[in-house]
Amino acid sequence: MFDDLRFPVIAAPMAGGPTTPELVAAVSAAGGFGFLAGGYLSADALADRVAKTAELTGEPFGVNLFVPGGAASADLSEHIERWRTEAAHYGVEPGEPQWDDDAYAAKLGLVLERKVPVVSFTFGTPSPEDVERLHANGSKVAVTVTTPTEADQAVAVGADALVVQGFEAGAHRGLFADEAGAEGGGAQYGVLSLLRLVSARTDLPLVATGGLVHGADIAAVLAAGAVAAQLGTAFLRADEAGTQPAHRKALADGGRPTAFTRAFSGRPARSLVNRAVTDFSATAPSAYPEVNNLTKPIRAAAGKAGDPEVMSLYAGQTYELAGSGPAASIVERLQTEAREAATRLSRLR
Amino acid sequence: MFDDLRFPVIAAPMAGGPTTPELVAAVSAAGGFGFLAGGYLSADALADRVAKTAELTGEPFGVNLFVPGGAASADLSEHIERWRTEAAHYGVEPGEPQWDDDAYAAKLGLVLERKVPVVSFTFGTPSPEDVERLHANGSKVAVTVTTPTEADQAVAVGADALVVQGFEAGAHRGLFADEAGAEGGGAQYGVLSLLRLVSARTDLPLVATGGLVHGADIAAVLAAGAVAAQLGTAFLRADEAGTQPAHRKALADGGRPTAFTRAFSGRPARSLVNRAVTDFSATAPSAYPEVNNLTKPIRAAAGKAGDPEVMSLYAGQTYELAGSGPAASIVERLQTEAREAATRLSRLR
Repeated sequence: MFDDLRFPVIAAPMAGGPTTPELVAAVSAAGGFGFLAGGYLSADALADRVAKTAELTGEPFGVNLFVPGGAASADLSEHIERWRTEAAHYGVEPGEPQWDDDAYAAKLGLVLERKVPVVSFTFGTPSPEDVERLHANGSKVAVTVTTPTEADQAVAVGADALVVQGFEAGAHRGLFADEAGAEGGGAQYGVLSLLRLVSARTDLPLVATGGLVHGADIAAVLAAGAVAAQLGTAFLRADEAGTQPAHRKALADGGRPTAFTRAFSGRPARSLVNRAVTDFSATAPSAYPEVNNLTKPIRAAAGKAGDPEVMSLYAGQTYELAGSGPAASIVERLQTEAREAATRLSRLR
Repeated sequence: MFDDLRFPVIAAPMAGGPTTPELVAAVSAAGGFGFLAGGYLSADALADRVAKTAELTGEPFGVNLFVPGGAASADLSEHIERWRTEAAHYGVEPGEPQWDDDAYAAKLGLVLERKVPVVSFTFGTPSPEDVERLHANGSKVAVTVTTPTEADQAVAVGADALVVQGFEAGAHRGLFADEAGAEGGGAQYGVLSLLRLVSARTDLPLVATGGLVHGADIAAVLAAGAVAAQLGTAFLRADEAGTQPAHRKALADGGRPTAFTRAFSGRPARSLVNRAVTDFSATAPSAYPEVNNLTKPIRAAAGKAGDPEVMSLYAGQTYELAGSGPAASIVERLQTEAREAATRLSRLR
């Protein structure tokens, strides 16, 4: 799986705007592989994107789905009050901090109906029964894992490949469960160490992700044993990405550190540090998707106003080195760099 | 620098016992490069080890020194009380929680006198004047860095190479300053991401370290641009290492997670989780070397008694995959694995 790509780079599914059919099509057409981000979308909206992507490219592409968890038990009142002030500033109402299942069943039905060749899952595993349905339908199943234990669980449900996510990665950690007391929501592994530990437990193909931004990083994880490298932040400023202008500008300006925060969504995600991260992280509850629904209209208003201080500026640790331009040119640069990096290993022979 | 090694693996300096002249000599003789650990030793004891290593191998080797910091301002009384109970259990007196400068000037004088070819520094940079003295004497200078900012500081004093330490690494983080409020003492970067960020700021040769335990990891960091890989945990159970039996056993048994703790030394270090890590980490002050001096006799007594629960079981994130046997056979295995890994990159050509 993924070993037949002309160039083993995968455009990470980036929910909430950055991933577009145009980005997925461009990366797949350039010899890599793109994933549509099914998270947050209605099944109808996802159907439109699948159709649009298929229109734009004849190459295969994948769809990522968020696995729903249980409703939160945390007290949200303090966090709601904090965001109410921000909402008032923009003259909008905060969203309802409700649990939802992200229309999981409907979207799973859609990817089955459209016979999407690769379906990846985040925040948990699909049930063994759903994996069987996907397999019977000709689809391959990938599961995002952040620890060796999660890898074991993904293997147990019959996954065909694992997306091994290091803590360097931008946006949400794929944690199956967010431990409220733990900084970052649970154990944190660097991508190379996690790849090594997971490699020792399974022979499944492993896709490495987390902080990879340069072609030499792709060469590195391939040498380490990955079948492909998944890059998100590297494509955030691509022409085809749907990243908001204020987010793009903050990435291009650089200078901000990154940190894990539950401030925006109620789940640990790596973001550039802005006022919301600084002020709201300490009291942000473990309550996804309740907090995500709460802050959505406020983040949207801030984005429209071009205010980076209360938007979720999700990005990986190496974001300052990500480029811009057409996705095809980004893939081409990565490929050139990866080839140069490969020649360094002649020293080992 | 380090680009003339037969095999670009460096045995990390492991202060407090694990590194021995025999281990350094064996790794240097096997085509890699070994570092003696100068930390904690008197200048005389270090002199003996330098002499002994030179007796054992004609190959060059290095010495690592700890750069002293300021005295702690934290209140140690609660932490002292906690360790007093452990001390009583073993019938020993806790050590004096005093500051010291680790005999830095005397040991610097020694490495100058012995014309040690490579001197590496941890916990800070040497002064520009000391770098000049070392250069005038024919020595090369390496500095351990954990952030891009520390890399800039090391470049500024005239270092010849940087040891880029990812947060995956076992034992002490090389942090120039330990931020008392921060989990892990400051910004945490994965080794690949840090290597990428530092590569973008300097053309100095970079040695990668942190969680590297397999030959494929060495190939990976070379592909990513490192000139060599430094491995510590991979040699902890080598025949020639001075690692205590109870520490060896805990490593071989596996199953324990690792975590950062100031419990043993007053500085963040990655250790296997044992009772001391679980019970003492939350209240452990940022106070190095005061806490190290406090706990030393108690840890020694626990080590003698073979009790892993109050020893510093320092280890990197991938410790469960480290092997044992003669250091030469470990180096040979790493080399075979690295060569196999290099062949995976033929796909990129």
